[in-house]
Amino acid sequence: MNIRFYNAKILQTAENHTFHIVEGELWVKGDSIVYVGENSATAETAAENAGSGKEAPAWDREIDAAGNLLMPGFKNAHTHTAMTFLRSYADDLPLQDWLNQQVFPREGQLTEDDVYWLNILGIMEYLTSGITSNFDMYFFPPVNAKASADTGFRTVQTSGLNNYGGTVELMEENYHIVNELSDLTSFIVGFHAEYTTSKELMEGVAKLAQKLKSPVWVHNSETKLEVAECKERWGITPTQLTDSLGMYEYGGGGYHCVWFEDSDFEIFQKRNLTAVTNPASNLKLASGICPVKRFVDNGISMAIGTDGPASNNCLDMFREMFLTSTLAKVREMDAECISADEILYMATAGGAHAMLLDDCDSLAEGKKADIIMIDLQQPNMQPENNIVKNLVYSGSKQNVKMTMVNGKILYEDNQFNIGFDKKEIYRHANEIIGRMK
Amino acid sequence: MNIRFYNAKILQTAENHTFHIVEGELWVKGDSIVYVGENSATAETAAENAGSGKEAPAWDREIDAAGNLLMPGFKNAHTHTAMTFLRSYADDLPLQDWLNQQVFPREGQLTEDDVYWLNILGIMEYLTSGITSNFDMYFFPPVNAKASADTGFRTVQTSGLNNYGGTVELMEENYHIVNELSDLTSFIVGFHAEYTTSKELMEGVAKLAQKLKSPVWVHNSETKLEVAECKERWGITPTQLTDSLGMYEYGGGGYHCVWFEDSDFEIFQKRNLTAVTNPASNLKLASGICPVKRFVDNGISMAIGTDGPASNNCLDMFREMFLTSTLAKVREMDAECISADEILYMATAGGAHAMLLDDCDSLAEGKKADIIMIDLQQPNMQPENNIVKNLVYSGSKQNVKMTMVNGKILYEDNQFNIGFDKKEIYRHANEIIGRMK
Repeated sequence: MNIRFYNAKILQTAENHTFHIVEGELWVKGDSIVYVGENSATAETAAENAGSGKEAPAWDREIDAAGNLLMPGFKNAHTHTAMTFLRSYADDLPLQDWLNQQVFPREGQLTEDDVYWLNILGIMEYLTSGITSNFDMYFFPPVNAKASADTGFRTVQTSGLNNYGGTVELMEENYHIVNELSDLTSFIVGFHAEYTTSKELMEGVAKLAQKLKSPVWVHNSETKLEVAECKERWGITPTQLTDSLGMYEYGGGGYHCVWFEDSDFEIFQKRNLTAVTNPASNLKLASGICPVKRFVDNGISMAIGTDGPASNNCLDMFREMFLTSTLAKVREMDAECISADEILYMATAGGAHAMLLDDCDSLAEGKKADIIMIDLQQPNMQPENNIVKNLVYSGSKQNVKMTMVNGKILYEDNQFNIGFDKKEIYRHANEIIGRMK
Repeated sequence: MNIRFYNAKILQTAENHTFHIVEGELWVKGDSIVYVGENSATAETAAENAGSGKEAPAWDREIDAAGNLLMPGFKNAHTHTAMTFLRSYADDLPLQDWLNQQVFPREGQLTEDDVYWLNILGIMEYLTSGITSNFDMYFFPPVNAKASADTGFRTVQTSGLNNYGGTVELMEENYHIVNELSDLTSFIVGFHAEYTTSKELMEGVAKLAQKLKSPVWVHNSETKLEVAECKERWGITPTQLTDSLGMYEYGGGGYHCVWFEDSDFEIFQKRNLTAVTNPASNLKLASGICPVKRFVDNGISMAIGTDGPASNNCLDMFREMFLTSTLAKVREMDAECISADEILYMATAGGAHAMLLDDCDSLAEGKKADIIMIDLQQPNMQPENNIVKNLVYSGSKQNVKMTMVNGKILYEDNQFNIGFDKKEIYRHANEIIGRMK
């Protein structure tokens, strides 16, 4: 499909984690952006820029953006998508009770088929929030990847390997299956957490990462208890331990990163790791508030994730952006401590870098067409004093007019175009949790 | 207008701040709810219940809710609506700098006409979030009230009297003007804050409240500095001071209530006052986190407000509900410390009680028809494990299908029915702030 957007405001990623807006056109050819420029382009410059010689490209669609905003899709840099079945089922419990009493016994009953449908429910919600790719950790990575490929969504899978499920060999197999399945699917080495994984398994993960030249990702220092127990076991923090095992030769990072010590910040700096913050989940499970300002001040890369729908309970990057910003402000008791641009960068380019999706990080020629359109003609986006601040501080799912992944429009004006009827997906989700009640 | 909703899930307010759902019909006649019951009602029972003898009422509209949820509209229990012009204009500053350097100089330039248009922009945003009434403090209460009455929105105005503007006499005049303007508009005595108001003025407010038998409302203990400076000036807290001046003979309460001391909780209990929490604004201005659990444990009534769009920056009760809940959890480091039902009660009935709108607090026969319809056929509302938790933890503006105030549908499927074109309102808002740049 060749799609031309015109009369658009286009968010451009600038230096030092800032943004600016250009008014004009954006052209998509196949899965890529082939032109970003002014409205005044003639058919000839259009044709030249689109690389189709003297002929103007044949447009399958020309979309009048009517002054609305085109921007890179959000990257949900940490989630467990298929946990949609547990949304609003088990809530209001601390992390360990929630996991042991509510989550694990029901997850044990999930089939691969269940996980397929539950993934699609999550993907639908991502699309409503302008999320164009997820960094997902859950059972059956090839199934998760297939659900993404089938609906046209982009996913980066990692392993949730721990003492109770999975092996290093299976992870290696999944690595190849998922990376080869589709242009939309990829796999990066990971495991669940220090507190669920033996040292022998962790050593196996480190070796695999070195063999595959892969970064490594893991839940890291989510709760105070997790860090205290790790120090009791090993005398060092989860970051120190995983680093000492040789995990991070090819980078990677941690999910949550709430209870960090000086040594942990140093390791993240030295190894060029990324901290993914999950503010809504950290609040809801009463885990704590991530030291975002210190990560930023230390030049450590950051990205933002929703965590799974059982602990959040929604998959909404607007809420996560607002929380990432304002929790930093209240944690430091300093309303100036972080800018809206920095937050928007984390939610777009920051996530893309963490997920090795650098070709999806911005709207520029040659980048993949992972694009969303934001309706600026809603009252929460008016007046247009500062569009970036409007996005971070007052944006909402309601503003997402369109979500395009890899050049294909998957969601537009509240309608899904993913090859499945939404009622069928809801029926599956209700049936799956219904079986377990 | 007589409007019949059928095939609806209907949220019913039960005892002890809980809710339950009934499936059936809800009938609106004029400005009121005349029937809530099962779908199976015949034309005869319909007629009897609607009080029109043997004839079935003539329906102006029959709306198939298609299994979606009808619930009481949200009450935004503290805001400064017309501050829409400053949204995303001045951000990332601490409260005092933000007020003195950015807000006050621009507010000084506002005309009554400006405030009228800026109110309507805020009202539009309320409708998109399912908010059916606001408790508003801003310049020109009669103008704010007129903007509400003209659009069909319900408002409770209070005074922002302080040393720099207003008099007790003017407040008394506004009290009568606004209370008499429309069924949709009312006025309760209030003033800006201890730190902006002389003792003489506060004494005048107390006398007026006693004369009018009105509750009194005020910004109370929003920042740590505010409380410290009050104690320096008077040796007591803002709550102790206002109480000692005889403010609360007819009740009332405080906005924000972040930095409360033991004596303040005792006064709120003794005087039966309500604490309105404004979590997004308190985070964004780095003011602190309200001790919600202690208010609830002490049996003190609570309500929720967005505060103004310059400090939040959006007017979204879903975000406020999530924050009220989860900030309590992380403040206490206890994920069990407050239930979703309690939060939803604050956002609906709690606000109604604070605003003296007890006839708008729930969906029951004889209550005013301030009703919203929530689209449950969106992925963030599936599966339907628990509708109240879905609302509080994963609800979004995107789920608001319809907002009805006083029996009139003002917003439906993203279209406004308020007597103004939205582009005209946006043009006014951009022009007003444009003049001040």
